[in-house]
Amino acid sequence: MSPTVPSSTSTSPRPYARVPIELGDRSYEIRIAPGLLDEPDTWAGLPRASTALIVTNDIVAPLYLARLRQQLSGVYSRVETLVLPDGEAQKSWESLDRIMDHLLAATADRKTVLFALGGGVIGDLTGFAAAIYMRGVPFVQVPTTLLAQVDSSVGGKTAINHPRGKNMVGAFYQPARVVADLDTLDTLPARELSAGLAEVIKYGPIADAAFLDWIEQNLSALMARDKQALAYAVQRSCEIKAWVVGQDERESGLRAILNFGHTFGHAIETGMGYGRWLHGEAVGCGMVLASDLSARLGLVPTAFVERMKRLIRAAGLPVVAPALGLDRYLELMQIDKKNEGGDIRFVVIEGLGKAGVRSAPTELIAEVLATHCDPSADT
Amino acid sequence: MSPTVPSSTSTSPRPYARVPIELGDRSYEIRIAPGLLDEPDTWAGLPRASTALIVTNDIVAPLYLARLRQQLSGVYSRVETLVLPDGEAQKSWESLDRIMDHLLAATADRKTVLFALGGGVIGDLTGFAAAIYMRGVPFVQVPTTLLAQVDSSVGGKTAINHPRGKNMVGAFYQPARVVADLDTLDTLPARELSAGLAEVIKYGPIADAAFLDWIEQNLSALMARDKQALAYAVQRSCEIKAWVVGQDERESGLRAILNFGHTFGHAIETGMGYGRWLHGEAVGCGMVLASDLSARLGLVPTAFVERMKRLIRAAGLPVVAPALGLDRYLELMQIDKKNEGGDIRFVVIEGLGKAGVRSAPTELIAEVLATHCDPSADT
Repeated sequence: MSPTVPSSTSTSPRPYARVPIELGDRSYEIRIAPGLLDEPDTWAGLPRASTALIVTNDIVAPLYLARLRQQLSGVYSRVETLVLPDGEAQKSWESLDRIMDHLLAATADRKTVLFALGGGVIGDLTGFAAAIYMRGVPFVQVPTTLLAQVDSSVGGKTAINHPRGKNMVGAFYQPARVVADLDTLDTLPARELSAGLAEVIKYGPIADAAFLDWIEQNLSALMARDKQALAYAVQRSCEIKAWVVGQDERESGLRAILNFGHTFGHAIETGMGYGRWLHGEAVGCGMVLASDLSARLGLVPTAFVERMKRLIRAAGLPVVAPALGLDRYLELMQIDKKNEGGDIRFVVIEGLGKAGVRSAPTELIAEVLATHCDPSADT
Repeated sequence: MSPTVPSSTSTSPRPYARVPIELGDRSYEIRIAPGLLDEPDTWAGLPRASTALIVTNDIVAPLYLARLRQQLSGVYSRVETLVLPDGEAQKSWESLDRIMDHLLAATADRKTVLFALGGGVIGDLTGFAAAIYMRGVPFVQVPTTLLAQVDSSVGGKTAINHPRGKNMVGAFYQPARVVADLDTLDTLPARELSAGLAEVIKYGPIADAAFLDWIEQNLSALMARDKQALAYAVQRSCEIKAWVVGQDERESGLRAILNFGHTFGHAIETGMGYGRWLHGEAVGCGMVLASDLSARLGLVPTAFVERMKRLIRAAGLPVVAPALGLDRYLELMQIDKKNEGGDIRFVVIEGLGKAGVRSAPTELIAEVLATHCDPSADT
């Protein structure tokens, strides 16, 4: 699990990585490089079909839809497109039915290949649509955000939201390929780049201390969207996630460590109302709180908390949590789907590069919140 | 594949069969016997959870819900129930969302076990709900119709309908157990018993000539709901289906033979408007047409068509198809999801106990329809 630290100069040969995901007859490959979208080779060797459907949103469509469509026209005799509004609200029954309806209206058969062109919302929605259209058709992820490139590329999680909770309806369903074109990150708003970095940072403390060192040393290159640095960050994140998921595809145990920062983070996201904080922002801040909880449980030195806080702040992420109040935090974390039977379970760092799952006394949670919540806020 | 013909006297030891379905870590067992519902052993050894949800309909609920609920109360600390209206219309987004909403309102976690108590509609809907609630929770099939006992018990097909087509949205998802209590068939309307027999009959010509002989010899016992005869009919049907599905879990090739009679059958069902013909009735009549097509393709003697027609009629099923007209039949069969790329594919009998999939010249389809459609009908 220890990485080879590459040069971050971009004058060297073009960065290009392939991460194979080994899952028997559901194995696939993540391709990571700038310029992939316009290369015919990127789209060669996919499942054969007469029809492809590209699902995207109205932010991404003007930037990349025509180019993807042109490439796919060389592979499929019919390339359909569906452009949805941007936003988390699209992870709904209604959008799912729009995709089903589009496919059926086009008499798309059970070999039809779906392409998810966009961020996590488009990926989750389109992947779930592929999982259930005629009981499953192939799909290809074309993530255009850093978050989606590192987080949605591995693990096969697809879902929509329900008014009663996020990601409550979905399926485990693997893509046929993931195409992470690093050039698409050039158009990403700074705030979303930071949100993606939160998930990159996560992989250090939970699984690879050397990767945490590397991120600290290369953070300015990552913030400047250096392709060489981004290629390695995406590659290493995918490798670590694949290693974790490969040992626990159905999220029964080990895989829970990928939720480092997420229990506090989901509470922040939900407590503030979906959309006010980006998922990655909430996770970034949640990692500060979870690191502090780890220290208060005596698992890591307090210096680790400061180190994480410094890195997360430098990545452009919030490190002060909203003052929702202890009771509201407990209530929000109680209904988080990661917990079963009432006990709130937190992913904690048990030493650099090693994570575990534990419950914690309410007093310690209160101390963590008192330390990191914004006392001036009134929500 | 050749069966041992059992005695159909019901004075012998209580009929009891278990059919193991071998699917690696998704293996399960079909239990077939009268009286299973009220036996604690039936419900032992299922996945552990704190919550169970029984989904059923308003016809079945008054007959069996209280008894199932009582048994499950000995296993799960909380047993929720959801009673939906009867009918195919419940295979919808709306009913799916009702189940999701009920589970979330009850804060049901990802270990919650769903029980499908009813016929094919309840089984398909509840199985699909289990497949997607929190990306998958365990479920148990408790089929109370003959059709569901022989057809839904094996194969893992779950689905809802879409306004543009039947079973267009769904998943392959295996139950943790199937409990086929033959006593529940005592309350089944005669028309539905016949509809179930259509699927039983199907297994003879496609895979087991000796079973076809056995059905002919035991048809009156089956029609009289003799438990010994029913036990063998359900067991043998499940065994044959499991054998076929085991070689082709994702319906890429061989499994298509299970659709014998279904291409014509679906056209009849849809053309008449869902619900006017029962699925099994349409399949029964469809088998007459598909047998005739097989004969016209020179694959079986015409005597076989008469034999099938006689058996299907004796089972209380229609053998005369509605006069929808050739063009409408072709249109309806064209959009049937079993066909890919335009060519209509029919399951044909290539000899007793052996089926295959072929396309047929339109002239032959026209001859089949001219021979078997009701000339007096005006639809």
